[in-house]
Amino acid sequence: MIARPYALASHIDVTPAINQRRLLRDLNAIGRIGLGDQGAVTRLVFSIKELRSRQVLIHLMRQADLKIHIDGIGNIFGRFDGSDPKAPAVLAGSHLDTVIHGGKYDGPVGVIGALEAIRTISENKIPVRSPLEVVCFIGEESSRFGFSTLGSSLVAGEVHSNDLANAVDAQGTKLADVLASLGIAPKHLRGLCRDPKTLKAYLELHIEQGPILEAIGKRIGLVTSIAAPSRFKVIFTGRADHSGTTPMEMRKDALVASAQFIEYVEKICRQFSSMAKGRVVGTVGAIKIEPGVINAVPGRAELAVDIRSTSAKSKNLVARLVKQRAQAIAGKRGVNVDMLTIREENPVPLDKRLLGLTREICDRKQVGYEIMPSGAGHDAMQMAKITRAGMIFIPSQRGISHNPLEWSDPDDIGLGTQLLMETIIRVANEKL
Amino acid sequence: MIARPYALASHIDVTPAINQRRLLRDLNAIGRIGLGDQGAVTRLVFSIKELRSRQVLIHLMRQADLKIHIDGIGNIFGRFDGSDPKAPAVLAGSHLDTVIHGGKYDGPVGVIGALEAIRTISENKIPVRSPLEVVCFIGEESSRFGFSTLGSSLVAGEVHSNDLANAVDAQGTKLADVLASLGIAPKHLRGLCRDPKTLKAYLELHIEQGPILEAIGKRIGLVTSIAAPSRFKVIFTGRADHSGTTPMEMRKDALVASAQFIEYVEKICRQFSSMAKGRVVGTVGAIKIEPGVINAVPGRAELAVDIRSTSAKSKNLVARLVKQRAQAIAGKRGVNVDMLTIREENPVPLDKRLLGLTREICDRKQVGYEIMPSGAGHDAMQMAKITRAGMIFIPSQRGISHNPLEWSDPDDIGLGTQLLMETIIRVANEKL
Repeated sequence: MIARPYALASHIDVTPAINQRRLLRDLNAIGRIGLGDQGAVTRLVFSIKELRSRQVLIHLMRQADLKIHIDGIGNIFGRFDGSDPKAPAVLAGSHLDTVIHGGKYDGPVGVIGALEAIRTISENKIPVRSPLEVVCFIGEESSRFGFSTLGSSLVAGEVHSNDLANAVDAQGTKLADVLASLGIAPKHLRGLCRDPKTLKAYLELHIEQGPILEAIGKRIGLVTSIAAPSRFKVIFTGRADHSGTTPMEMRKDALVASAQFIEYVEKICRQFSSMAKGRVVGTVGAIKIEPGVINAVPGRAELAVDIRSTSAKSKNLVARLVKQRAQAIAGKRGVNVDMLTIREENPVPLDKRLLGLTREICDRKQVGYEIMPSGAGHDAMQMAKITRAGMIFIPSQRGISHNPLEWSDPDDIGLGTQLLMETIIRVANEKL
Repeated sequence: MIARPYALASHIDVTPAINQRRLLRDLNAIGRIGLGDQGAVTRLVFSIKELRSRQVLIHLMRQADLKIHIDGIGNIFGRFDGSDPKAPAVLAGSHLDTVIHGGKYDGPVGVIGALEAIRTISENKIPVRSPLEVVCFIGEESSRFGFSTLGSSLVAGEVHSNDLANAVDAQGTKLADVLASLGIAPKHLRGLCRDPKTLKAYLELHIEQGPILEAIGKRIGLVTSIAAPSRFKVIFTGRADHSGTTPMEMRKDALVASAQFIEYVEKICRQFSSMAKGRVVGTVGAIKIEPGVINAVPGRAELAVDIRSTSAKSKNLVARLVKQRAQAIAGKRGVNVDMLTIREENPVPLDKRLLGLTREICDRKQVGYEIMPSGAGHDAMQMAKITRAGMIFIPSQRGISHNPLEWSDPDDIGLGTQLLMETIIRVANEKL
């Protein structure tokens, strides 16, 4: 179904192409900041490397004649005024911070992609009514202080007083001290919430960080919703015993209890793996056992569990089943089990009309796309709280992300940026 | 069956009692050395604490008028000459070093028990033909340098050149440097092997370190053999992926593969848990996964496996089955598996005649006992290579050992020491 209900259809056929060479040049310039061994990129939030990447972005925004605004936490907005500077703005962007030993595409593709889109619009004097803003959110990754989407959630009106007060990095540095050293007082963070009236939409181009697009041979993903995790710890407490002297039938082995639990998490999530059942994924990503030596029966095991879905109902059902099974295993084996909630979030639906616009553009250009959820969290899930939000995915080679091997095809980055630009133009000019 | 085929049967009815109060006093004196928080005792081999415990022992041996000999590595022998000083000696002892945060009975019960037995014989002028020796072996625990029964294996003729050259403790201190600092040159270690002709038997009193005696309500265990471990690492290598974006059916989760393996180890060992089937115990005591974070599918898991039995045949069969299962799981799940041998040892049968003597003594005294294997390793398994070796166990409360909660009833310690003494007297006077 290719509908063409919009006034500017005839203009869009002559939409100019983004400058892929310039796009990749700037993406590489960012990618060299924090580059370490074996291509690993590390730009932790508020680190000197991350600050430098933001300086480079500011420089590029200046070159593109954007009006720069940096808010109290360090989110950067680069604005291009459209024909109606008082109209709500169309924002597009992502983040520049990375995990430890990450790649060069998770985040920057969305920031530099948005910059390229907007400067192409500006250079080619494409008429747009709404102002356009490139945005770089600070601290999307949780790798340094343990909580994610710091900048975008402040813009969306979440204050995180507890997280801000208590967060400490692996070196023992307090986030509060880091902020103070940058001259950021806690009270400044209350005013960061962006007035929804000033916003028309938020668009984010991002690498998929998963294997689906590559597996089905599509170059574009149009994101319906962002899955949310239920995260909790499961702690089995049995009894540490000598591994040589304790008969099998007298053991309270916390690791064997854990093993049964880990198998069940996979089994139940496979049962909920179809879209019809809400496509749930579940992972035990961390396990610590005590005493953890070859000659002792494990007495304690602590597991970190992550259950995600774009369906809150399916996610909550699976989390409940998994917790019930932990209880059942513990009961049957005579060990104790405790469960501690780490985080309980709700899936975020993205805007259907924004998705529809990009879909129309793809159809017209005969670009194959997949309508799909996002398994990973993004700044878009915060922005969706205060405006229409949409996301465009491009494939990740072998699904790898948060890893030096993270890679996306330059032509896919170019295509994603082109679609982002064309979507921005339509959003800026049409009534949604 | 109570046979009394020995000449001294009438004498033994008047065998004096050991001095339990003195025994416990000296045991407590040793137990205070290296005592830390919550009753934890730490006397790592060659640490200042362990050296001090040996000083105290030497002092106690002097008080008992024993002739002291300290060999090149620091094994201590305290000798009481019998009526025939040239006859092969009866040795009894154990070790004074401990694990980190261990208890006060694992080791010292056998050393101070032997001292108490021999000084009771000496004081009461009980006629014994063979010389008697209290022995304190150095470095029975593997906690500091990673290999166990250092002193007794040197006495039994094992040299361990590689272990001695390569061993490094957790602080990075090389065993070779420790030995050099104590004035011990590697060449001195070659001559420590004791001439088997100088030995008649080795007896070791020890806490069970397991729950069996307490569970069946017996105060004495007579040890038939010492189980040996097959120890190996199993390393599953799958692929680390994003836990949110990777569908269940596209994962190569090394932890779920490990979970199936861990369950199987328990299952197969339960099938081999009867004495008729060789009583095998199997434990996965350590697991390390990578990347080991809540938002990543584990890509690598390294497990440490310990399979033990007093039957080499059963142990090897179970180890083979377990390894086959690891291969099968890996094949089915499309992950890779590597297996690395850590240690492959043979079970050590102890001397039946020594066991028979102690058994007769128990029968006559109407002391209930259990004929049982030892799941843990002991100095006796080294000494069995060069002489007849026997072991007497007393119960460990709740089976706990290598732990500050390690506890044995003082009356059981006294009873074990009394049986040790009576066994020593018979071994010293009878033809075996």
